Amino acid sequence: MSTPQAAPRTIVIGGVAAGMSAATRLRRLDEDREIVVLERGEHVSFANCGLPYHVGGVIEDREALLLQTPASLGARFRLDVRTGHDVVAIDRDARTVTARLRSGEEVELGYDSLVIATGASPIRPALPGAERAHVLRDVADVDRIVAAVAAGPRTAAIVGAGFIGVELAENLALRGLDVTVVELADQVLPPLDVEMAALVRARLEENGVTVRTGAAATSVTETTLVLDDGSSVPADLLVMAVGVSPESRLARAAGLETGERGAVVVDEQQRTSDPAIFAVGDVAVKRDAIGGGDAFVPLAQTANRHGRLVADAITGRPVRSQPVLGTAIVGVFGLTAASTGWSERRARAAGRDVRVIHTHPSDHAGYYPGARPMALKLVVDAATDEILGAQGVGEAGVDKRIDIVATAIRGGLHASDLADLELAYAPQFGSAKDPVNMLGMIAENLASGLTRSVQWHELDAALAAGATLVDVRTPAEHERESIPGAVNIPLDELRERHGEIGEGPVVVHCAVGQRGHSAARLLAQLGHDDVRNLDGGVRTWSTATR
Amino acid sequence: MSTPQAAPRTIVIGGVAAGMSAATRLRRLDEDREIVVLERGEHVSFANCGLPYHVGGVIEDREALLLQTPASLGARFRLDVRTGHDVVAIDRDARTVTARLRSGEEVELGYDSLVIATGASPIRPALPGAERAHVLRDVADVDRIVAAVAAGPRTAAIVGAGFIGVELAENLALRGLDVTVVELADQVLPPLDVEMAALVRARLEENGVTVRTGAAATSVTETTLVLDDGSSVPADLLVMAVGVSPESRLARAAGLETGERGAVVVDEQQRTSDPAIFAVGDVAVKRDAIGGGDAFVPLAQTANRHGRLVADAITGRPVRSQPVLGTAIVGVFGLTAASTGWSERRARAAGRDVRVIHTHPSDHAGYYPGARPMALKLVVDAATDEILGAQGVGEAGVDKRIDIVATAIRGGLHASDLADLELAYAPQFGSAKDPVNMLGMIAENLASGLTRSVQWHELDAALAAGATLVDVRTPAEHERESIPGAVNIPLDELRERHGEIGEGPVVVHCAVGQRGHSAARLLAQLGHDDVRNLDGGVRTWSTATR
Ligand SMILES: Cc1cc2nc3c(=O)[nH]c(=O)nc-3n(C[C@H](O)[C@H](O)[C@H](O)COP(=O)(O)OP(=O)(O)OC[C@H]3O[C@@H](n4cnc5c(N)ncnc54)[C@H](O)[C@@H]3O)c2cc1C
Ligand SMILES: Cc1cc2nc3c(=O)[nH]c(=O)nc-3n(C[C@H](O)[C@H](O)[C@H](O)COP(=O)(O)OP(=O)(O)OC[C@H]3O[C@@H](n4cnc5c(N)ncnc54)[C@H](O)[C@@H]3O)c2cc1C
Ligand SMILES: CC(C)(COP(=O)(O)OP(=O)(O)OC[C@H]1O[C@@H](n2cnc3c(N)ncnc32)[C@H](O)[C@@H]1OP(=O)(O)O)[C@@H](O)C(=O)NCCC(=O)NCCS
Ligand SMILES: CC(C)(COP(=O)(O)OP(=O)(O)OC[C@H]1O[C@@H](n2cnc3c(N)ncnc32)[C@H](O)[C@@H]1OP(=O)(O)O)[C@@H](O)C(=O)NCCC(=O)NCCS
Ligand SMILES: [Ca+2]
Ligand SMILES: [Ca+2]
Repeated sequence: MSTPQAAPRTIVIGGVAAGMSAATRLRRLDEDREIVVLERGEHVSFANCGLPYHVGGVIEDREALLLQTPASLGARFRLDVRTGHDVVAIDRDARTVTARLRSGEEVELGYDSLVIATGASPIRPALPGAERAHVLRDVADVDRIVAAVAAGPRTAAIVGAGFIGVELAENLALRGLDVTVVELADQVLPPLDVEMAALVRARLEENGVTVRTGAAATSVTETTLVLDDGSSVPADLLVMAVGVSPESRLARAAGLETGERGAVVVDEQQRTSDPAIFAVGDVAVKRDAIGGGDAFVPLAQTANRHGRLVADAITGRPVRSQPVLGTAIVGVFGLTAASTGWSERRARAAGRDVRVIHTHPSDHAGYYPGARPMALKLVVDAATDEILGAQGVGEAGVDKRIDIVATAIRGGLHASDLADLELAYAPQFGSAKDPVNMLGMIAENLASGLTRSVQWHELDAALAAGATLVDVRTPAEHERESIPGAVNIPLDELRERHGEIGEGPVVVHCAVGQRGHSAARLLAQLGHDDVRNLDGGVRTWSTATR
Repeated sequence: MSTPQAAPRTIVIGGVAAGMSAATRLRRLDEDREIVVLERGEHVSFANCGLPYHVGGVIEDREALLLQTPASLGARFRLDVRTGHDVVAIDRDARTVTARLRSGEEVELGYDSLVIATGASPIRPALPGAERAHVLRDVADVDRIVAAVAAGPRTAAIVGAGFIGVELAENLALRGLDVTVVELADQVLPPLDVEMAALVRARLEENGVTVRTGAAATSVTETTLVLDDGSSVPADLLVMAVGVSPESRLARAAGLETGERGAVVVDEQQRTSDPAIFAVGDVAVKRDAIGGGDAFVPLAQTANRHGRLVADAITGRPVRSQPVLGTAIVGVFGLTAASTGWSERRARAAGRDVRVIHTHPSDHAGYYPGARPMALKLVVDAATDEILGAQGVGEAGVDKRIDIVATAIRGGLHASDLADLELAYAPQFGSAKDPVNMLGMIAENLASGLTRSVQWHELDAALAAGATLVDVRTPAEHERESIPGAVNIPLDELRERHGEIGEGPVVVHCAVGQRGHSAARLLAQLGHDDVRNLDGGVRTWSTATR
């Protein structure tokens, strides 16, 4: 028989970040293939990450969120994009999928290769009364929230102080609502360490948002959210933002292997346990770049990059998806908080021996107007000097520093190597020793044993063990805020007055750690043989212990 | 005899970026050493890089430029800092230096180790009448320029459109002067390629600065600067900013080896040909990170980093100075221009077979308000996919992207690897596929042979050789500005209409290269076997050919 061979057909389930990136790239790689995108919702290619800003009116125009339409994708890429198609089953033997239309009608479609890009769904805690709670994942959700805001609620409660919860808090506050954020953990933004997250919490509170951490929601009334301590939070409007779980039911029902948090297990070509089926984006398991283990990292850049990559894999191009750092960022009332890699908490939980560095540099040279402080943190493997992660919180330049560290990790640079990065310097953009260079210098001083530091959470133990705490700031600074028990000997007098410090271990501190470093070096050379510098100075200590 | 051994003495010549960084670090490493800093001028530790902004009043307070004083450095670091000490001779056999004081008196001082950190001096072209021209290197210079501006000149001419010339042009314009910049090269900012520099030139001109490129100054009258074409430029105030040369006379007179542009030759520990003498900062030869050869790179970050490093070397710590990329940045009337590594021109001059990529991304997602376009360029070794350099010009986010690429180069990442960097994404900070990721994707498409591109400067030759030029933008875009000879077939109609394109080679183009990429892939698959995409689209082409 010699009937002409039909073009192979790839079906993509889910038409947003990962799915549509796969489909468009696939078309560029293969003009002949039949490419069908099945999307359950009304919209494809929309800007999920912009949704919170439409709630607040920052992105006024709803249309701005709709980056492509089935028609535009059809015209440009000859994609057969079908919205309102809810895929309800995959038959792996027959290589077909079944989609249910709005009408209830079902259609069956055969595939040669299948891409599952179904994303993740918001977790809805099953609290009594919580049916009225909103979630935010797609355009329909945002339409509902916008309509609810238009109805004129006075108060809003958000359950969950992760990235989306915090963005929503800002945007609902912008709409004039009285906002409370309720979080089970002891801090906002759980991917950050507590002392970094504390800066974000403060910023929320300064802007009128009430933050309730360490609090569990237990039930919902018509106008409130009830917490486990019996108190209740005003909640004319209620949004659940407690995280997402992979939308992997379909895959599981088809017998595909799932793993981390129920996400679909894939190899480096995003291939599932069925070689004709790929999974990509939030629904797929990632490999963790730091620990090498499995990870669930539901972020748009990875969904887009892996989406593009799966098209290459399907067409046989030699690609391998990179492990992920989970680099993430959020803006909150003018403050930026970002992180890459592991937090200190996570590294310690994994049993790593870590070196931790806190600094408080300015985004650019202090002598040029407009310099603004940030808090930076670097987590380093003490055994190898490997960079495990970084976090930054500040008003300017945080995104740049975190991206530099993320790139350094990807390039296999060690913490000490950061000292030597040659970054673009003019006074309005950075410092001759950039904040990232400073992290590297401090890391190198610790790695080589030139200096030793003590973390804010280790200070009490050090003092209990008999260390003398010396504040090397000026008397005026010491007066303003000081750590209980500290004696004040300004750095510039330390050479002459170090005799006032008795025998035994010494902890020095200053405002941010920099003068403390010079003080520690001085005392060590003057014969004090157990000297440590309080990492991050009073600034880290007081944020962390406030 | 058993007299107590005197502490070793290190003398540092030059007390600013490199010299003072060496001295302070040296003190932290060695409390016992005698450290003497000899500085010819009145000031140490001043912010050279801020000087132009004091001229313009952006940095109003002159004191802000003086970061440290001999007294503050004495109190904190026990440095013996002596200003007004012009070192006039080094006696290597005796290990002494001779310094001339203001009084004319000379003092001789012995050293165990010597650090030459004398920087570089502005080149003063020997034009007739040019004695009245200013230069800008130190605080005395800026005082003179500020006084001259206060005297009320109407016009200013700046010779040299390098980084300092451009900064001065902006700052003198801010003072209300009518400013002309005269540059010998055919472009401003010679470290950039011409089509990138053209954007900076346009910004200068939009702000009332007259730019005369390809013009040599030949003489100076009382109120003008005369050029080689016989024309003259109004110049009540005249500043020479044609570059610097290493201040290496002293080293040369002492018989130390000099090299590239007369800078002092050093090894990886910044040691000169005399093992007791180190040289660091602008005065020292650097190693070029791309080509491996010698380089003269007079920049503050390197001066500071190598200054710190030389202290380590002196005290026997195991350090090696990194080769330099020459990463540099400048702000001009709200525009940022930055570069790292080699330009296309330099790479071609070095005989490298290069792949060049131009893009015009936004600094952040287009759907979030305030996104601003930038031009990015990546220069790649065609044989190895090695990143040779990058350039960026735009209003926001340029510093970040150049720093990311500089870090990637340092980490040994290849151009294609940029596609996979995991950078912090939220819509106000970047895009799900960040501009740097896009550079990597395009690089990978070129490296794998998936697409081919043609540069703006290769287009004429391609058309002369018979290529059909197809503009795949919309008719409205084509109407507004188009490349002579282009036929317009919008991308979304190309599948149906590609028959209108005859046999033979095809060049497609769009606005920036992105639609052109999809068009090129489409035509290639539809049977056109010689298709290229105009790199950077009309935007690069028209900036470059304007
Ligand atoms: C409010 C919000 C803010 C965010 N902010 C950021 C941010 O700032 N930065 C960042 O990196 N990430 C952010 N994210 C996360 C980011 O949007 C996701 O990581 C990304 O969209 C995942 O892409 P995906 O294609 O895997 O899944 P999605 O984008 O969720 O797309 C999956 C699609 O599949 C469809 N689908 C699911 N099941 C079926 C089925 N059975 N049949 C047919 N269709 C189906 C869904 O309807 C959905 O449209 C944010 C997410 C939200 C919700
Ligand atoms: C206007 C201007 C703007 C700049 N902007 C930038 C920028 O934005 N980014 C950037 O990276 N770089 C910039 N630079 C360059 C940067 O300032 C230099 O690279 C850096 O200062 C070099 O440091 P150095 O210690 O080697 O030399 P210098 O800082 O020049 O210090 C050398 C010192 O040695 C002294 N000296 C010389 N000879 C003797 C002697 N015989 N005896 C005693 N003392 C002596 C000099 O008086 C001088 O004070 C700028 C420079 C200028 C002038
Ligand atoms: C937009 C979308 C449809 C993908 O379309 P796409 O055409 O594949 O991707 P982009 O528009 O990002 O363009 C990238 C392509 O243009 C190319 N390109 C970009 N600039 C270029 C230039 N100047 N010259 C040449 N090529 C260029 C890239 O190389 C890439 O092509 P490749 O994949 O073949 O290498 C898909 O990502 C999507 O639906 N996004 C919206 C949803 C979303 O991402 N949500 C989460 C974040 S809010
Ligand atoms: C300022 C100057 C005197 C150097 O002083 P310095 O004390 O060596 O350097 P800095 O103030 O930059 O501080 C860096 C030191 O503090 C340490 N440090 C910074 N932040 C720290 C923190 N939070 N915790 C611990 N240590 C910290 C660094 O590790 C470094 O110490 P190290 O060299 O022993 O590793 C010298 O660079 C100078 O004169 N600069 C002005 C001139 C100039 O640079 N001009 C050109 C640019 S405009
Ligand atoms: Ca069409
Ligand atoms: Ca003292």
